[in-house]
Amino acid sequence: MKFRYLFIAALILNSSCFAQDSLMFRKIADEILLRGNCYDNLHVLCKTIGHRISGSPEAAKAVEWGEKTMQQTGADKVWLQAVDVPRWVRGYENLQLQYGKGKYKTVKMLSLGNSVGTNGKSLTAEVIMVKSFDELNSLPAEKVKGKIVFFDYRFRQDFVNTFPGYGDAVKYRGYGPSAAAQKGAVAIIIRSMSTGADDVPHTGSTHYVDSIKAIPAVALGNFSADTLETACNSGTVHARLESNCRMLPESVRSYNVIGEIEGTEHPDDIIVVGGHLDSWDVGEGAHDDGSGCVQSMEVLRTIKALGIHPKCTIRAVLFMNEENGLKGGLAYADSAKAHNEKHILAIETDAGGFSPRGIGLEMPDKQKEKICYFRKLFLPYGVYDFEEKEGGADISPLAKQHVPLAGLLPDSQRYFDIHHTNNDVFEAVNHRELELGAVTLTQLVYLVSEYDLK
Amino acid sequence: MKFRYLFIAALILNSSCFAQDSLMFRKIADEILLRGNCYDNLHVLCKTIGHRISGSPEAAKAVEWGEKTMQQTGADKVWLQAVDVPRWVRGYENLQLQYGKGKYKTVKMLSLGNSVGTNGKSLTAEVIMVKSFDELNSLPAEKVKGKIVFFDYRFRQDFVNTFPGYGDAVKYRGYGPSAAAQKGAVAIIIRSMSTGADDVPHTGSTHYVDSIKAIPAVALGNFSADTLETACNSGTVHARLESNCRMLPESVRSYNVIGEIEGTEHPDDIIVVGGHLDSWDVGEGAHDDGSGCVQSMEVLRTIKALGIHPKCTIRAVLFMNEENGLKGGLAYADSAKAHNEKHILAIETDAGGFSPRGIGLEMPDKQKEKICYFRKLFLPYGVYDFEEKEGGADISPLAKQHVPLAGLLPDSQRYFDIHHTNNDVFEAVNHRELELGAVTLTQLVYLVSEYDLK
Repeated sequence: MKFRYLFIAALILNSSCFAQDSLMFRKIADEILLRGNCYDNLHVLCKTIGHRISGSPEAAKAVEWGEKTMQQTGADKVWLQAVDVPRWVRGYENLQLQYGKGKYKTVKMLSLGNSVGTNGKSLTAEVIMVKSFDELNSLPAEKVKGKIVFFDYRFRQDFVNTFPGYGDAVKYRGYGPSAAAQKGAVAIIIRSMSTGADDVPHTGSTHYVDSIKAIPAVALGNFSADTLETACNSGTVHARLESNCRMLPESVRSYNVIGEIEGTEHPDDIIVVGGHLDSWDVGEGAHDDGSGCVQSMEVLRTIKALGIHPKCTIRAVLFMNEENGLKGGLAYADSAKAHNEKHILAIETDAGGFSPRGIGLEMPDKQKEKICYFRKLFLPYGVYDFEEKEGGADISPLAKQHVPLAGLLPDSQRYFDIHHTNNDVFEAVNHRELELGAVTLTQLVYLVSEYDLK
Repeated sequence: MKFRYLFIAALILNSSCFAQDSLMFRKIADEILLRGNCYDNLHVLCKTIGHRISGSPEAAKAVEWGEKTMQQTGADKVWLQAVDVPRWVRGYENLQLQYGKGKYKTVKMLSLGNSVGTNGKSLTAEVIMVKSFDELNSLPAEKVKGKIVFFDYRFRQDFVNTFPGYGDAVKYRGYGPSAAAQKGAVAIIIRSMSTGADDVPHTGSTHYVDSIKAIPAVALGNFSADTLETACNSGTVHARLESNCRMLPESVRSYNVIGEIEGTEHPDDIIVVGGHLDSWDVGEGAHDDGSGCVQSMEVLRTIKALGIHPKCTIRAVLFMNEENGLKGGLAYADSAKAHNEKHILAIETDAGGFSPRGIGLEMPDKQKEKICYFRKLFLPYGVYDFEEKEGGADISPLAKQHVPLAGLLPDSQRYFDIHHTNNDVFEAVNHRELELGAVTLTQLVYLVSEYDLK
């Protein structure tokens, strides 16, 4: 049924129409809450493979696991899509700080992803603290030259949704090294992009500007950053860094994992739902983004289990290399274009396996209204927020092909406590929260397929 | 400003009126998210006192801590309200199960609160499993007599909000012992009131019907209950219980802790916000209900810190003995009646320190509408649900005096994983989630005081 016909029908039969969909929404929820297996799948991924940075042996195992698990959903077709990915490795790393004339003491740290290291040598220099790029830029070059810049920028805790806080702070992770190197710095230390009241360092990708020297970049947890801040305010601080992290010269062949249920009425209209299979090389990539992977597969499993024959084609995609290259998302979009595929909606789930609260909609108002028309169906499932314009990184390359994008918006309060850390493990995921996210995704996919909301 | 004037004004000045309140909502959020101390207070309560069952030395310490912490909020007046509470003690307890002719093996368990014990003796009997009261009642008495009844009723996971699931299952904890004893059983084992995919037993209060023999009652975690279910389905099971829990004959003098900021225009109109200070004798009572206590005090601190001079009197109450007697809530209501106090709203926060999602309103529609008129102010803080009729246990005795009741409704997904268990510890509380609950409470108190929504 096209939307305009639906709309006319709805004026007359509004309640009965919603009643039917409401019933299907309930069936979807029951199937996942009572018989779902996304939580068990996440357990296997986290505990038998663990973290899985692009190009690593673990990432290769995760592809195998993904292909097998995708087949178990009952998908009509499962295949791998080749992607060449960068391979960054960490190796041994150690940071010591000396306050005044005290002893050098090791602090908890993580090199930022993509960072260069000290090639195993020891790099020792004075630390200069700045609160912002503005403060850095206001300093004369001789005050920065040869120093290690400490970007002491705090994650703003006053945002209710933590993602804008992350967006605000993450520039220091992304562009800190080049900004500091441009003024002659030899390395940088950042305060982690963290909401945590703890000492947990967070990794995550940094980027080097081509024309500027690449210098090592490391992150401290909030408590260590507090201590360093106090020390910098009261005297001289030196740092001694040894790190072996490096980008390997050769890319590695890897894969997106794709599963599909063919549509019965509009097989050429594709709805894609996905998360990313790679993670950083710490923790177990449980929330980021094992959760999104198992939820995406749960959508296919649930459709099959309920005997739904979707009108449109439904695809689940486990994208490779979201964290440090986006090669999987780019390859998927390239392939879609090359094969002249028609995607009517792309949905990403990459904000953690927490209680769903909304669906971000990155699409023209006309399409947004079509989805929002059904918003009250989502309300009993705690999903009320349709105001954010938010898709996701892996599906973002499809925007060039004018594909409408959507993103699952879970509760954001805990995400940046554990994002990119050793604490992002299976135990940090609650089974009901994870499952409810899969419920929302399946409900959305069902609606869009049923009503062809293009 | 009375509501009817406000309403007329609002028709004309709707946006500017909301804009002012919206600004105050933002100030409240900034104060708590950036300078709040409820998380630190919770840390002190959990780590220096820990669990604090009514009548225990720890509960007495918690009263002292509560009084001191209440004073630190800057409250105009702080006092203790005497309450005589029951004193239940656990002591050593051990449950062993024997499957078929195998060895007796100890399983993880907790006696239910208020339960009688075996007086240190060993009670051994065959286990008979029933799925429901109906099944129990359909059995001939001779099949139950002398046996230990295993109530194998599962917490329903298909409810999206977990509280109805708890309400559905908890009757087996509350009335299981008397129902079984009436048929001649000598003890009961229940499957915990738990959403957990784990083996964590949950305690919580049971009640004995006066005319029926009181028999011991214990709870198993879900995994142990699964094992016992399988064993009961396939053969004979015996249990050996030894427990020393008992209700002491004498009640103990304890206290509600009360703090107050006097209203500037309507000092006789009281708004009360509270949680309960007692907990079960396991874990640290962090979510249940240390969170509610520190949030309630945070309301007073924030009002003082922002220099708000509330029109009505604002009270924070740390109620004693919610878990096994409600003596604190009853004493507070009795005192309110005796002193002819006029409560215009009573708010409870006793559903965990999780992300706030709504405010339950247990009051006539007319008053409900007055609060709901402002609902869009709460939306940027993730609070969207005003549909539940939900106050709280401690404030429920005020209902007889026709006091409108409200309850903070946090996200409910994780609560019944840890409720009444050894896992209800400080580390299970996220600082931002806890703080956002305090934000919602302060915003609500501010609105009701400002617009005198009676």
